[in-house]
Amino acid sequence: MNPTIQTLMNHVSVRDFEATPLTAKETSQLVAAAQMASTSSYQQAYSIIGVTTPALKAKIAKLAGDQPFVAGGESLFIFCADQYRNHQLAEQSGVDVADALAGSDAMIVATVDAALAAQNMVIAAESKGLGACYVGGIRDGISAISELLELPKGVYPVFGLVIGHPKTRNAPKPRLPQAAVYHENHYQADKLSLVNDYDRATAAYYDQRSGHPVNRSWSKTALNSYVAHPRQHMRDYLHHQGFMTR
Amino acid sequence: MNPTIQTLMNHVSVRDFEATPLTAKETSQLVAAAQMASTSSYQQAYSIIGVTTPALKAKIAKLAGDQPFVAGGESLFIFCADQYRNHQLAEQSGVDVADALAGSDAMIVATVDAALAAQNMVIAAESKGLGACYVGGIRDGISAISELLELPKGVYPVFGLVIGHPKTRNAPKPRLPQAAVYHENHYQADKLSLVNDYDRATAAYYDQRSGHPVNRSWSKTALNSYVAHPRQHMRDYLHHQGFMTR
Repeated sequence: MNPTIQTLMNHVSVRDFEATPLTAKETSQLVAAAQMASTSSYQQAYSIIGVTTPALKAKIAKLAGDQPFVAGGESLFIFCADQYRNHQLAEQSGVDVADALAGSDAMIVATVDAALAAQNMVIAAESKGLGACYVGGIRDGISAISELLELPKGVYPVFGLVIGHPKTRNAPKPRLPQAAVYHENHYQADKLSLVNDYDRATAAYYDQRSGHPVNRSWSKTALNSYVAHPRQHMRDYLHHQGFMTR
Repeated sequence: MNPTIQTLMNHVSVRDFEATPLTAKETSQLVAAAQMASTSSYQQAYSIIGVTTPALKAKIAKLAGDQPFVAGGESLFIFCADQYRNHQLAEQSGVDVADALAGSDAMIVATVDAALAAQNMVIAAESKGLGACYVGGIRDGISAISELLELPKGVYPVFGLVIGHPKTRNAPKPRLPQAAVYHENHYQADKLSLVNDYDRATAAYYDQRSGHPVNRSWSKTALNSYVAHPRQHMRDYLHHQGFMTR
């Protein structure tokens, strides 16, 4: 196993950091690594907003599910799906792609571009001994956060990414068995028993890791995220930002 | 620069491969690396379909924009956003999250999960000297491809990923200047002149790389993807698969 694959296999989300933000040089190196990720048709349809002002960070953390570590001393990046640049270029050059940019595919393109760039940043960070945690909670308070970040139409924040110097690390979380995620040639819809076996195993993990009651299994965690964060405001929000209106 | 960051910075999409698919062991190692990526609320809301039958691969390649390299001897993986598993678990446990799973946020969660896993696979592959190329063209013929792959409702293929042994490699493509992509604290909407400078530089890249006429700049490439592939069928397709109906 080479050092890169070792880094990938050792991934664990870190939520407990030293109060030391990244240096400007570290940030620049991580952004450069993010930018080298693949991008759909070379569009680079994303933007990264580094939140460095403590007051702004505190407001965003509060709106993003109020998780204290997001407001801590480490670095916070907001990864945005960005079609604003394409809108500007289309207007400048007179190419009429307004309908396509307002379609579902343009939303997928920009969302995936943001995700691939972010994952490169995470891996670069982890290879340097830094820790990272995605913050989907950004979408809990997405309208207010978009106002704070002054996002124009055509841009939406997909998630936050906290990066810093880890104080403590959990053990890597066990993943679904490979056979539950990997299919050959056709989707096999009958993998539920594999999933249920795994679910029983994760109950033990949760029991061991943190002293939570044994009935916190993987499936309860996964489904509970939809009970606790249904985010049914997202469709109206996305339409308001000019996504998926056609 | 450590070897992992070196791998990230050297990324280039490869479209010219030896006709040697990955071994089962290589595939398994790459899937394992993919599975260790972060996943929203531990959901693992994606599936990977390895296409190994030449006839099936040829049909998919034809429907995915008819790019010959997709049908070649190397390996083809289809990364799917997958909420089918959550639908099954919800039904099994009696937790009512049907509305949330049919909402825009559940679509974002699953799309991002698929993208993060895929990027891990790409980086693992590149760290081993393999080459990779994403295939967004999967969404050109997404309905027919979904039928071929026998996808149930709650699953959609976000992109394909071709991985193999590179025969030739292009030079890495120059990215937007960091200042055009990276913002501090607030989105700066006035970066168009930076983008235009870059656009002139990429025209030179295209001219040099492949002998294409000098008027193939970055912005033309980016916008042309929407002229050539507006994919206005995507909204109806996603609704049909049970995504974003609420």
